[in-house]
Amino acid sequence: MAKASRACVVLLRLLAAAATLSAAVVMATSHESTTVFGLTLDAKFQYTPSFKFFVIANAIGCGYSLLVLLVPPTSSLSRFVVVLDVIIAMLLTAAISAAGAISEVGKKGNSHSGWLPICGQIPKFCDHVMGAMICAFCGVVIYLVILLHSIHTVIGPLLP
Amino acid sequence: MAKASRACVVLLRLLAAAATLSAAVVMATSHESTTVFGLTLDAKFQYTPSFKFFVIANAIGCGYSLLVLLVPPTSSLSRFVVVLDVIIAMLLTAAISAAGAISEVGKKGNSHSGWLPICGQIPKFCDHVMGAMICAFCGVVIYLVILLHSIHTVIGPLLP
Repeated sequence: MAKASRACVVLLRLLAAAATLSAAVVMATSHESTTVFGLTLDAKFQYTPSFKFFVIANAIGCGYSLLVLLVPPTSSLSRFVVVLDVIIAMLLTAAISAAGAISEVGKKGNSHSGWLPICGQIPKFCDHVMGAMICAFCGVVIYLVILLHSIHTVIGPLLP
Repeated sequence: MAKASRACVVLLRLLAAAATLSAAVVMATSHESTTVFGLTLDAKFQYTPSFKFFVIANAIGCGYSLLVLLVPPTSSLSRFVVVLDVIIAMLLTAAISAAGAISEVGKKGNSHSGWLPICGQIPKFCDHVMGAMICAFCGVVIYLVILLHSIHTVIGPLLP
């Protein structure tokens, strides 16, 4: 039982690493150039602090997911792992949320602030960002499952 | 010992409720009108989806913090409270992050997207948003302390 549970957690962590790595790579490779009224528009993730934060957070999430596999489940460090899991889950949530807020402005604009939507001009870039956010969302969901599993095994069955 | 620990958690939850309530109220009462080149600019939190999300998330966080005080610490529901604490902490993180991403654009703009900074025109509104974000950040930190406390009491001392 303990062995199956451990294998399950390892699988989940590998999935989380894959999801966050994909999110970081898809966002980092998003790039599109277009010409509007003779002006060249260049869209890169580096131009938006929220997207930079997204890439860094997902890279940290991926690195952590792999590193934590090295911690033996019986060591005293495993207590810190639960704490770190919570913090990484919050970091990934923050990254998706910040990128989502900017994407929303990019897609719909904000007439009250005079910010025009730009996804019509750079649809490929917007699709890339959307894809990266879906990957990162999968990562957060997996982290939530890992946390539920930790709480379940530590505190006792969630369903009486 | 158990009584002191319980009193500590109740105090932390009341503080979290106060912090999230302040955040929601400060954001909800932010409003500024200004005239630029003869045009009236009206800044309200309702005009930005991220700020609406911020108010709703903090209202949920405040309501939850108060409701959860009714759950007796020995009931079987207390297992769910840890799970809900994690989810509320993630919700508040997402709210701050989304509001922060939009504030950043409001403050510095994004020349690559053609979005101009607007905080120069509506400084009072921006200060309100900043204040709300600081309150919400306090709320998240308190939730993190509550979670650390739960993990500490349930799994065992974090510091061996």
